[in-house]
Amino acid sequence: MAAPEGQEAIVAEPQRPITNILIIIAMQTEALPVVNKFHLTEDPHSPFPQGVPWVRYHGTYKDLNINLIWPGKDPTLGVDSVGTISSALVTYAAIQALQPDLIINAGTAGGFKAKGASVGDIFIVSDCAFHDRRIPIPVFDLYGVGLRKAFETPNLTKELDLKVARLSTGDSLDTTEQDESSILANDATVKDMEGAAVAYVAELLKVPAFFIKAVTDIVDGDKPTAEEFLQNLASVTAALDVAVEKVISFINGKCVSEL
Amino acid sequence: MAAPEGQEAIVAEPQRPITNILIIIAMQTEALPVVNKFHLTEDPHSPFPQGVPWVRYHGTYKDLNINLIWPGKDPTLGVDSVGTISSALVTYAAIQALQPDLIINAGTAGGFKAKGASVGDIFIVSDCAFHDRRIPIPVFDLYGVGLRKAFETPNLTKELDLKVARLSTGDSLDTTEQDESSILANDATVKDMEGAAVAYVAELLKVPAFFIKAVTDIVDGDKPTAEEFLQNLASVTAALDVAVEKVISFINGKCVSEL
Repeated sequence: MAAPEGQEAIVAEPQRPITNILIIIAMQTEALPVVNKFHLTEDPHSPFPQGVPWVRYHGTYKDLNINLIWPGKDPTLGVDSVGTISSALVTYAAIQALQPDLIINAGTAGGFKAKGASVGDIFIVSDCAFHDRRIPIPVFDLYGVGLRKAFETPNLTKELDLKVARLSTGDSLDTTEQDESSILANDATVKDMEGAAVAYVAELLKVPAFFIKAVTDIVDGDKPTAEEFLQNLASVTAALDVAVEKVISFINGKCVSEL
Repeated sequence: MAAPEGQEAIVAEPQRPITNILIIIAMQTEALPVVNKFHLTEDPHSPFPQGVPWVRYHGTYKDLNINLIWPGKDPTLGVDSVGTISSALVTYAAIQALQPDLIINAGTAGGFKAKGASVGDIFIVSDCAFHDRRIPIPVFDLYGVGLRKAFETPNLTKELDLKVARLSTGDSLDTTEQDESSILANDATVKDMEGAAVAYVAELLKVPAFFIKAVTDIVDGDKPTAEEFLQNLASVTAALDVAVEKVISFINGKCVSEL
């Protein structure tokens, strides 16, 4: 969310407690512990069109109606539908179908040790940008980078003692020299494959969105990314889910402006 | 469209003439000549949600109901909303809102002289894939590449004497060494910023989609891409629009299976 739009949304209904939250999680391994923790159930009547693999889990926790959307397995290949296109599509379709008050995109990420990240760290994102959309024409270059502020959650961040960092998003798990240079220009501490796409759609449709990212691998370390990612996925996901649980508990009963 | 899904769609209603076509064009410069040629008018009641910049032009030509969707100008930066995320979103939203029989994605592209492309060439696309989604984990790697057959239009291609080529899609106008290597692996003659994203959504929702791409710049030539692209945009767009006009005339009165 760019600050002006986010603030407009808040000003409109400053005192109404949040009732309807949308959690977007790209991988099943990341999503299922949250589904189980909050006893969410899969919607037998999908709000999405026939053919798309997107899965809605829902349930209630105290005063909150929780919708967790997982983009599902690719219909042809059977792997999680990761990346910016799927996450943009589910964000769009879920906002249309479910009219959430707030979006939380949670997931794993690569971290940069040069910026202070370690495996297992949990970050709240201050800003998102893309690092693999290079369009060297004036103004199109800025559109490609797509820098956006996340919705600010200073009270939540302080209360849960979470670190704050900038996020850079791209559709590859690895990083080329050009990606690294763009990530550096984005001043990012963490790197994922969805965040900036969710932020783009949330801003278009004026829904506050924030981001919780847990570090599975060190991009500027000496281990191969894919290997380190797979090695740490289960344990880091467990830490992420504890954080998501605390975040949801904190949100309950509050207005968006109190986060 | 992967052949099996496309063919299922055809088998369902083999003899019904096409009545409702959806044309997706990413840039205003590319879209307006088609809008003017077919006397399309901008829909005063957008079928899309408030906040999105997507523009629907519509009108009729002989027996065809034509919808042309342009993703519009970025609300913050004012440049065309190019790239895979916007094109996936408008494809999804337009299919939901307009239920087209057929999708045509038309636009400019970079060409590879090593594969026989020249500035001004018009290609019908046989297959689309991505070149900037590297996920080096088994099966995820194939998901990232996202190779898909376009809907086959052998009669149209022959009648209009169009060349056929493979398309590779990425979110950058320039190409890194890794992009070039992926484009080579994709065996692509043309490179754009939208096609494979439109193909992905069209396949999910089982709508036949084909692609007309006109070469504005030679990627493996000696001129800087951005400069050559801007220099040739107007003249190549004129050639593209002549091709789109012929394609629409050819489609009129035919079934999908006759293309």
